[in-house]
Amino acid sequence: MSISNSDLKIVADTVRTLSMDAIEKAKSGHPGMPMGCADIAAVLWTKVMRYNPDDPEWMNRDRFILSAGHGTMLLYSMLHFSGYDYSIEDIKNFRQLGSKTPGHPEFNVRLGIETTTGPLGQGFANGIGMALASKMLADEFNGDGEPIIDHYIYSIAGDGCIMEGITSEAAALAGHWGLGNIIYIYDSNSITIEGSTDMSMSHSVRTQFESYNWHVLEIDGHNFDEIEKALNEAKAVKDRPSLIIARTMIGKGSPNKQCSEACHGAPLGEDEVKCAKESIGCDGDVCFNVPERVYEIFSSVKQEQKACYDSWKKLFEGKVKGDIKKRWDSCFSAPDAESLRGAMPEFKAGGKIATRTASGKVMEVLFEKLPHFIGGSADLGPSNKTFISGYSESGRNTLGRNIHFGVREHAMGAIQNGIACYGGFIPFSATFFVFMDYMRPAVRMAALSHLQSIYVFSHDSFYVGEDGPTHQPVEHLSAARVIPNLNVIRPADAEETVEAWISALKRTDGPTMLILTRQDVPSIDRKCSSAKDLEKGAYVIHDTEGKPDIAILASGSEVHVSMEAAGMLADQGINARVVSFPSWFIFDKQEEAYRSSVIPEDVPVAVVEAGSRTGWERYAGCHALFITIDDFGISAPAEVLAGHLGMTPEAVAGRIRDFLKR
Amino acid sequence: MSISNSDLKIVADTVRTLSMDAIEKAKSGHPGMPMGCADIAAVLWTKVMRYNPDDPEWMNRDRFILSAGHGTMLLYSMLHFSGYDYSIEDIKNFRQLGSKTPGHPEFNVRLGIETTTGPLGQGFANGIGMALASKMLADEFNGDGEPIIDHYIYSIAGDGCIMEGITSEAAALAGHWGLGNIIYIYDSNSITIEGSTDMSMSHSVRTQFESYNWHVLEIDGHNFDEIEKALNEAKAVKDRPSLIIARTMIGKGSPNKQCSEACHGAPLGEDEVKCAKESIGCDGDVCFNVPERVYEIFSSVKQEQKACYDSWKKLFEGKVKGDIKKRWDSCFSAPDAESLRGAMPEFKAGGKIATRTASGKVMEVLFEKLPHFIGGSADLGPSNKTFISGYSESGRNTLGRNIHFGVREHAMGAIQNGIACYGGFIPFSATFFVFMDYMRPAVRMAALSHLQSIYVFSHDSFYVGEDGPTHQPVEHLSAARVIPNLNVIRPADAEETVEAWISALKRTDGPTMLILTRQDVPSIDRKCSSAKDLEKGAYVIHDTEGKPDIAILASGSEVHVSMEAAGMLADQGINARVVSFPSWFIFDKQEEAYRSSVIPEDVPVAVVEAGSRTGWERYAGCHALFITIDDFGISAPAEVLAGHLGMTPEAVAGRIRDFLKR
Repeated sequence: MSISNSDLKIVADTVRTLSMDAIEKAKSGHPGMPMGCADIAAVLWTKVMRYNPDDPEWMNRDRFILSAGHGTMLLYSMLHFSGYDYSIEDIKNFRQLGSKTPGHPEFNVRLGIETTTGPLGQGFANGIGMALASKMLADEFNGDGEPIIDHYIYSIAGDGCIMEGITSEAAALAGHWGLGNIIYIYDSNSITIEGSTDMSMSHSVRTQFESYNWHVLEIDGHNFDEIEKALNEAKAVKDRPSLIIARTMIGKGSPNKQCSEACHGAPLGEDEVKCAKESIGCDGDVCFNVPERVYEIFSSVKQEQKACYDSWKKLFEGKVKGDIKKRWDSCFSAPDAESLRGAMPEFKAGGKIATRTASGKVMEVLFEKLPHFIGGSADLGPSNKTFISGYSESGRNTLGRNIHFGVREHAMGAIQNGIACYGGFIPFSATFFVFMDYMRPAVRMAALSHLQSIYVFSHDSFYVGEDGPTHQPVEHLSAARVIPNLNVIRPADAEETVEAWISALKRTDGPTMLILTRQDVPSIDRKCSSAKDLEKGAYVIHDTEGKPDIAILASGSEVHVSMEAAGMLADQGINARVVSFPSWFIFDKQEEAYRSSVIPEDVPVAVVEAGSRTGWERYAGCHALFITIDDFGISAPAEVLAGHLGMTPEAVAGRIRDFLKR
Repeated sequence: MSISNSDLKIVADTVRTLSMDAIEKAKSGHPGMPMGCADIAAVLWTKVMRYNPDDPEWMNRDRFILSAGHGTMLLYSMLHFSGYDYSIEDIKNFRQLGSKTPGHPEFNVRLGIETTTGPLGQGFANGIGMALASKMLADEFNGDGEPIIDHYIYSIAGDGCIMEGITSEAAALAGHWGLGNIIYIYDSNSITIEGSTDMSMSHSVRTQFESYNWHVLEIDGHNFDEIEKALNEAKAVKDRPSLIIARTMIGKGSPNKQCSEACHGAPLGEDEVKCAKESIGCDGDVCFNVPERVYEIFSSVKQEQKACYDSWKKLFEGKVKGDIKKRWDSCFSAPDAESLRGAMPEFKAGGKIATRTASGKVMEVLFEKLPHFIGGSADLGPSNKTFISGYSESGRNTLGRNIHFGVREHAMGAIQNGIACYGGFIPFSATFFVFMDYMRPAVRMAALSHLQSIYVFSHDSFYVGEDGPTHQPVEHLSAARVIPNLNVIRPADAEETVEAWISALKRTDGPTMLILTRQDVPSIDRKCSSAKDLEKGAYVIHDTEGKPDIAILASGSEVHVSMEAAGMLADQGINARVVSFPSWFIFDKQEEAYRSSVIPEDVPVAVVEAGSRTGWERYAGCHALFITIDDFGISAPAEVLAGHLGMTPEAVAGRIRDFLKR
């Protein structure tokens, strides 16, 4: 069936009426965007995009990302029409507790939601990650003849997305990498929440994106022919990402509110909805109506999609078999992390090595054993020890397993999330721990969306030394641990670093953050435990006979300091237990019996950590001794600072002695 | 004295030798940038910039910002030569504990450091804030004839700064506002830490900045004549910011390491330093040598600067006197916040108003009473209630007290910091609390630099409702409170909002963050206290006769919920005290006697807050009842969520009853 412009109009107008109705019923939502972009969506879903609602996980489907996430009703409308698992009842439940139709899209591939969006710019950058993953998968599996992976990444981004810095970062990388599978539509409606974009935005988006090596087109976003032509032109440009600047009217179809901020983020109101429906040519009193013609159109679209899907399936089965199939499957299943333990580097007790360096050695093994382990640093590879030589690298018009993100932490985090959403790869990213702040919104999205994004954050305390307070994390451990569903691991030494990586690989339903030292730390001679105990979050690494006089809780580089302090205390007749405490997140999941065996109720507790005290009270009690760092750092050599800040074994032992005397 | 190119060369070469020596002695630092930019700096400090080391606070001095903050030795060298309070001993103490010469520049106007830099892009954006403040001061005070304020903002930014998203945001705003007093030099040395910028950067920076309405020049950054000519051209362009793209050789002068990442962030090594000195024409064995000619040059520069300063002083004294002088002085002194109390809006107990709305009403008074109170929102003015109508607004080529930042939270925070560094204004910024994450690095810089940046963050909990988990802050209160030197205030009602603003205005040595509700909350009928008690951080807002059975600690919208719960508990014979706890930061500064009078040791404690529990243990003890939100939110109407999440008065009373029964 050929789809006429009047078909497209009926689809687009039904997006408008459905959006208005759902938002009106919820008394909450953003009608402007779905109404303004309805014409574009109608073309995308009926004439351009390839998808299969019966197999939403089809790897060669086109991805659609609603970067302007507040426009959810656009997405739910199209997903309902096209046969995804959304009923009219689901639409009526828009924004209600427990519904399938929350206020912003929440990552759920089975439901056709490719990534979580809402915080502006995140979706834009996620798509760059998907495009990268798609290209790398294609490079590996397409071989000769017809390609297995040749789909596109579509997105609609608004003025807000364009203004966010993360978008500039991601766009520069997409252009640098020459990601021709990107087709983004910029919904240029010249209206933001405060009013006309003239208030805050007057730059040339065309020129900006051309500077980033993008192919830029400009169209009337309400002209079906122009939309389709532009999308086809964009598809034909394979060596650069495409941006289609679509001039649109926000809230198009609302006679009294279109083209104004009044329709951006609030229901139009009953009267205006009625008026809008009538001006569109619908019955103003009928709600949640989807004309039969819309379902007919999508039924025919589905048939065409099915044919396309079936022929891909045949191609896939013909091409991806035997060893290739094994490789394919290994991309899409969790690695057997336990089995990697045998291949891991060994670190002799008593040797000294920075945990970042130990991590680098682990990563060499991971690069060898896990061909789908990819990632990189925001220009700190040599410092983070995350650049693994001997493997491919990204560069101009080139992709590789070592990704050079440049100094773009925020885009790095969101691109990584896009790779994780896409699947087929386990992505890591890296920077100095203090610069986690630059990518925090992306870390939050990984945690919220249950993505296996792995972070390698080195230079984890004042031991950064001379670079001073701007580069010395203080509050970052506390601020990271407080993000729900994020596993923050701060290994004590090389052996725990191995275990931390194994833990990160095993955790497929959420992000893991490895917090690593800049400075060398001794590999601990474990007498009463094994580094494998990291899997319990905290464990006794050094103990005394009989009941201890003090239990010292420490993480990272403070574990060996605490053990040395314990030795000094022993000489003075004080029995100290030392608990290595790499992960609160894991420890919280242990049974009460184990937790109280590690930190007995009736033993005084000291906490030793080169970071903020906040939160440690939960484990140490409120009357514990806190040897922590609660103010900004200072520029000085690390060992001088350790003395100045009271973080040497001598100082720690002294403070514990005084504490016990009280 | 006219300064010849050979004079410039000797100055530049001395920057190189001094930088190499200081970094070598410290065994730490970044020689590449100072050596690469020495020629530019020589021209800037001898022929272009206007400053007076004897009055470093001179308001009409040119500002210089080392956005590429790792290149500190460039700055310390120039400040030493030009007569600021840096001796050769200070240079020898580079990066040592307690020295005047820390690893990255730390804000200190008396020492010629205009802002703290190091985290890339911050300085770039700070300068835009300074340029804005300068223009607004000029608009107010220049009047007719010769201008009082007509200086420039200079900065050197590297590849890293250019790649950061914050820079794109800030550059777009600078172009939009037409800030012709900006002259930035892009140190385009094509090298980053990982190696050639080709790895991660291939876009046209010229085109990018032209898209933002900047005037762009390209020069050889080692050709004195080109440098001077470009700077003069940039000065002449008054309607747009200027970017001078200077092609430089990183580490110029180091025969074996220049033009490579090897000289970026580590000492060159003794042999290479010797070799470099000899190739420059100096004695390879002499360290920390400043040729007499350098001091002669700067002595003559100082004389010229002095003449310029003196004539400005005369002009200033002639023009700025009487009422104008009073206005000028009021810009540069802390407002008498106490005296504002009488003018503040009054809120009747029992009325209902969202604290964001109460804040908006306070801000109307502040706009009226404090002409130098300026700021705005990242496109959420109508939601944050921060747009104050009847006052000037920023726009294309226009500045005003209501600043439209667009959807650019990160640049907003850093521009605000730049305004605070500059002086003359008290700046605020605003967004939804959840998007604090987007500007967290700038908030940290404000706290670190002791700037009076005020944040208005509304929509502070799950009460955001339908927008769902991407928009509902959970961990943000904990994550904000953990930043050192940041006062986070979450007022309980309209009256506390007034007091929170007074507190923010009084606090001139650090940032204050106001955390405000979206939803209406009742104005509390205070029987045993006054909202003024906010100045103690926490206070008893509701009490019982005799010893309470439970002390409930609550902040923000949970205070009235707790008071209602206390009422229900009273009906059941349980005496509950309610403590309104708007600020940990302030409470921590109170005397122990006061603190223990508010939260007695022997009374069971409950914490009620619509945010993460982390950190509350410090006040509540570890065995308290925590009625907090520790997982991501859900999309649903706010009142439905309150029930679902157990945050209603009934649910709170029920949990406290059960807790006390145990």
